[in-house]
Amino acid sequence: MRACVVGAGSIGSLFAAHLATVAPVSVLTRRPEHARLLNEQGLRVSGRHDFTARVTAASDPAELPEFDLGIVATKATGVEAAAESLAGRFPSATVMTVQNGLGAEEIVRAHGDWPLVSGVTFMSGTKHSDAHVEYILDTPTWLGPYGGTPFERVQEIARLLVESGLQAEALPDLLPAQWSKLIFNATVNGVAALTGLPHDQHFAAEEGLGDLGHLVHALVDEGKRVAAAAGVELHDDPWEMNVLATKRGSAHYPSMLEDVEARRPTEVELINGALVREADRLGVEAPLQTAVYRLVRAREDSYR
Amino acid sequence: MRACVVGAGSIGSLFAAHLATVAPVSVLTRRPEHARLLNEQGLRVSGRHDFTARVTAASDPAELPEFDLGIVATKATGVEAAAESLAGRFPSATVMTVQNGLGAEEIVRAHGDWPLVSGVTFMSGTKHSDAHVEYILDTPTWLGPYGGTPFERVQEIARLLVESGLQAEALPDLLPAQWSKLIFNATVNGVAALTGLPHDQHFAAEEGLGDLGHLVHALVDEGKRVAAAAGVELHDDPWEMNVLATKRGSAHYPSMLEDVEARRPTEVELINGALVREADRLGVEAPLQTAVYRLVRAREDSYR
Repeated sequence: MRACVVGAGSIGSLFAAHLATVAPVSVLTRRPEHARLLNEQGLRVSGRHDFTARVTAASDPAELPEFDLGIVATKATGVEAAAESLAGRFPSATVMTVQNGLGAEEIVRAHGDWPLVSGVTFMSGTKHSDAHVEYILDTPTWLGPYGGTPFERVQEIARLLVESGLQAEALPDLLPAQWSKLIFNATVNGVAALTGLPHDQHFAAEEGLGDLGHLVHALVDEGKRVAAAAGVELHDDPWEMNVLATKRGSAHYPSMLEDVEARRPTEVELINGALVREADRLGVEAPLQTAVYRLVRAREDSYR
Repeated sequence: MRACVVGAGSIGSLFAAHLATVAPVSVLTRRPEHARLLNEQGLRVSGRHDFTARVTAASDPAELPEFDLGIVATKATGVEAAAESLAGRFPSATVMTVQNGLGAEEIVRAHGDWPLVSGVTFMSGTKHSDAHVEYILDTPTWLGPYGGTPFERVQEIARLLVESGLQAEALPDLLPAQWSKLIFNATVNGVAALTGLPHDQHFAAEEGLGDLGHLVHALVDEGKRVAAAAGVELHDDPWEMNVLATKRGSAHYPSMLEDVEARRPTEVELINGALVREADRLGVEAPLQTAVYRLVRAREDSYR
């Protein structure tokens, strides 16, 4: 199976480098100099694994070789441009999305009729340079069919990822995992972006009236009510995910917090916006999640 | 009537300079060099008024001359230290508080049995240096008796302020005005601190689902329910105060936003905390005000 990874941030780089150890891999980057560097130096992985992989990189989709699996690994805010760049090409490819939030699949679908696979990834990495990513958390990527994609195709992709050294699992229905992560991300990313706190013990503190954990818990409870109304039984309890994560040694720096500190657009629409619009559509009250959504949007407005 | 102003920020400087045109005025500053400068240069007012006043300044309360009216004009976070510095002195003085939020009077009371006057001020200024304040908004200061203070004393003080060129009014019951400002401040200061937005048109925008004005409106409505449960009929509608203020030409930069940007302690406890604790005491649900309170506290924790 020939693979192409679109977007070489930390997640894209981890996919590309690992897959390149078991398959021909191309990488579509936004910047020409990024592609040039990858072609010259390969892509180095450090941390949990340690190797350098050869990849074929390009910043122009017309220069990409044919592939069977396309992984759109941009941020949620980059899916539209990524899908547009694939439009009208690679008719035999299956395209997989791995963005935070909901709605990436629909955006890709609007640009082509490739079979689609939904992904949710819990792995994490830190990009030290355009050609070097550190593999931090080796937690799994879960995959499920989207639309009519046969489950066998999903299983094939999961097997390839596992062969390449990553954790992956094919699930017949990805929605329970996608919603667990959606509620977790809407809550933790939103609160981190507004408070400036990394995901630390404050998020689980529920003693005094002013403690942040009360709010985090109430946000999760609202999210769970929206999921229930959508008919989704969650794969993991987002509150337990939160408590567990805050007990890890070093506090994670959520991407939405990095984004607001760098005054970049955040993923708020596909994360918090998606959750709030679902609540609205289903007639479920979600006043706190809606408040966080409006506050993060306003935070973006403050530097726009 | 001899006056002493404790705290020479912008509000304290405006009181001190104006009062000094009609009465002997002393100023208690935190920093000795601030007192020295005021003694040497006087206190300049520009903007709506233009004059320089002579004041007697000191950073040691033992050096203050006797006075009949003490105005505690520190930030809410400075009231404890200010009251402590007056403790055991000036037995014939009436002490007036003008802080944002609720509870400044109780803090002063814990340090002495001076007759107390509650104040709420809507005037604003910008301090250009330790000896120069610009008078920006000449909106009034409202005064009311606290505890058993005779209303005549309050009227005397209001008359003195008016004589000195400031807008002031004595009200038999200050709570309606105090609560209007409390709800306004808890909402506008809190949202500004979290979003980074000055008090601009976003605060009144109520079109799209993600618009901030919806949240501001819901926060004000919660505050009004708490006031009603406390038996307070508001002097002004905080939503109308909000809409009116956002229509002024230049957007006001709320002090809580300045505080979080400078990574200083904010007035969150005496503003948002006071409102939330009142809601809690009265058994009124205020989930959104509580959320804002917890988020601002967490924002403070992020730089503590």
